[in-house]
Amino acid sequence: MSKTGKILAILAMCVCAPALAAAARSKGTPSAAQILAHAPRSQWRTPNPDDLLVMQLPSGRVVMELDPAYAPLHVANIRTLVREHYFDGLAIVRVQDNFVAQWDDPEGDDGGDPRKIRSLGRARQTLPPEFTRTISPALPWVRLPDGDVYAPEVGFSRDFPAARDPATHQTWLVHCYGTLAVARDDAPDSGNGSALYVVIGQAPRWLDRNLTVVGRVIEGMPRLSSLPRGHGPLGFYAHPAHRVPILSIRVAADLPPSQRPKVQILRTRSRTFQQLLDAKRNRHDAFFVTPPGKIDVCGMSVPVRKLFKD
Amino acid sequence: MSKTGKILAILAMCVCAPALAAAARSKGTPSAAQILAHAPRSQWRTPNPDDLLVMQLPSGRVVMELDPAYAPLHVANIRTLVREHYFDGLAIVRVQDNFVAQWDDPEGDDGGDPRKIRSLGRARQTLPPEFTRTISPALPWVRLPDGDVYAPEVGFSRDFPAARDPATHQTWLVHCYGTLAVARDDAPDSGNGSALYVVIGQAPRWLDRNLTVVGRVIEGMPRLSSLPRGHGPLGFYAHPAHRVPILSIRVAADLPPSQRPKVQILRTRSRTFQQLLDAKRNRHDAFFVTPPGKIDVCGMSVPVRKLFKD
Repeated sequence: MSKTGKILAILAMCVCAPALAAAARSKGTPSAAQILAHAPRSQWRTPNPDDLLVMQLPSGRVVMELDPAYAPLHVANIRTLVREHYFDGLAIVRVQDNFVAQWDDPEGDDGGDPRKIRSLGRARQTLPPEFTRTISPALPWVRLPDGDVYAPEVGFSRDFPAARDPATHQTWLVHCYGTLAVARDDAPDSGNGSALYVVIGQAPRWLDRNLTVVGRVIEGMPRLSSLPRGHGPLGFYAHPAHRVPILSIRVAADLPPSQRPKVQILRTRSRTFQQLLDAKRNRHDAFFVTPPGKIDVCGMSVPVRKLFKD
Repeated sequence: MSKTGKILAILAMCVCAPALAAAARSKGTPSAAQILAHAPRSQWRTPNPDDLLVMQLPSGRVVMELDPAYAPLHVANIRTLVREHYFDGLAIVRVQDNFVAQWDDPEGDDGGDPRKIRSLGRARQTLPPEFTRTISPALPWVRLPDGDVYAPEVGFSRDFPAARDPATHQTWLVHCYGTLAVARDDAPDSGNGSALYVVIGQAPRWLDRNLTVVGRVIEGMPRLSSLPRGHGPLGFYAHPAHRVPILSIRVAADLPPSQRPKVQILRTRSRTFQQLLDAKRNRHDAFFVTPPGKIDVCGMSVPVRKLFKD
C-alpha cells in the first residue's frame, strides 16, 4: 500500500439514524465520517493477503478476513480447501432470516447423493474445536468498558469483536453481524471448515464458545444478507434450484496483484477508533435527544476502507 | 378465533444453531418447538385487528402489530393515514444494510418534486414525541433478569421488547430486529408516521428514547430484510426505479374477515414464554457445549403463530 493510495469508500460504517432525508446536520463536533477521514494512515492496517478470502458469487464478490491467531487449525484447513478449489461449484444452501447464510457441499445435505460428496483432499475431516483460547500477550486486547450480557469482558482483539473471562483465562471471538464461523454437527470436533456460515441478523451470542469463529466479512455483506430466505427447516433452501452457486473462493495471496482486494481495517488500538466509540456513545449530532451513553460490542463495526489504487 | 383453530406454522421462532443438516437432536428435554406446540391456548393472544397493519408489496404481505398504549398519538395518526390510503402507491425508499428498511413519499425525498408531495389529509403534520412513557399499571412489565448494556432494566411489555428506568419512572419500547418506528427529521416533533422504518439488522439500541416506536413486524420480515440494499447515502435507493412500490397498507379491521391475518402472539406473561427463555438460556440440546446462561432482550423474539383457519 503506497502512501499515495486514494480512498474510494469507507465500507461498513453505519451513519445509523433514520432521518427523513439524506442530509445530516451536526452540532459542530465531527461526525463519524469526518473522524475517519482525518485518521492518520498509520491507524489503518492492511490485512495479510494470506488471511483474505475472496468469494465470487453470481452477484459479485464477498471478501472475508480470517484470523489465524484465534483458530489456527481451522484457518489452515480452510486455506487447504480453498487451494484445492474445494468450494468452487458448491453453493449457499441455507439462508435463515435474522440468523445465518451458510455454504456447504449440497450433496452432503440430507437428500443429497452420498456418492457425489466432494473429497476434502488433503484437508482434515475433523479438527479439535477452537471455541476459545487462553489469554496471552499474542492476543492483544482493547477493552470496551460498556458492559455485556453474555461475557464478563468484551472488546476487540486483532480488530475482531471478542470477549474474555479473566476467571477462566479464556478469550474468544464473538458472533456479531458479519462474523464468519465453522458449521458443525453435534460432535464438537465435527467441524472442519468445509461448511461455513456468516451472521446476517441480530448477534447470536449464544453461539459464542460453542462454534469456532474464523473471521468476518469485510466487503460485500449485502450479497449475503439480501439473499432470498430458505423455506426448508432451519432456512435451508427447499429446492436445489434456489441454492446460490459459489463460482470460486480464493486466497487473496493467490490472485494476481491487480485482482486482490485493496482494503484496510481501522486498528482498534488506534486513537481514531476510540474517537468513533465516543461518537457512537455520545451522539453529538443534532438528531439525538438522549444519547445512549453506551455501545455494545456488536453495535460498533470495525471500519473498513477500500482504496482506489495502490 | 375459535377453539378449533388449527396451527399452520410457528413464525418468528429461530432454532438458531448452525447445524450441518436439518435434523436436530435433543438430550431428552423439550425443544423450543415442542414447548410451543404444548402451550395451552390461553397463553396465546389474538391481536386486536384495529392494531394490525397489512402492507402489500409486490412480493407479498407484511403484517405489523401497532401498540397504541406506548404511542397513542402516532398510532392514531398512522391509522388515519392508512384509512386515507395515504401509503398506497408510495414506496420503500431506503434499505440500509444491517440497519433499516424505510418507506416514505418519494417526492418528499431530496430531489423529488415538491408539487407532487402527497397531502396528509386529516392526519397531523407534527406530533409531540412519544419516545418514552411514565411507568404505570397500564403498561404491564415482564422483567428479563439477564441484564442489558443500554438500560437499567429490560423485559417485555404488552408482548413487545421494552426497557425502563425506575429512577426516572420512564419506560419505552426498544429497537430490536423487526421493530417498527417513526422516522423524523432533526426536530423531535417532526415525525408523524408518514415515514416509517423497520429494523433489519443488529438491534440499533442507540435509537431507543430518540424515536417513537409504534410496534413490530409479526409476519413477512424476509420481504423487507432480503430487499436489495440502496446505494445512495444512508442506504436510500440511488435511482427511483430501484424503489419498492407499496401496493397498499390497510388496517386489518377494515379488511373482509377472510383477508385478515389469522395470527396469534405468545403472551410474554405466560409460563410457556418463561420456559422458552429458559430453553434459550440453558440450551439443553446436544449441540451446545457451553450454554450461554443468559439471553438478551433482542435475542428472544416473541413467538407468533399463524392459524390455518378460524
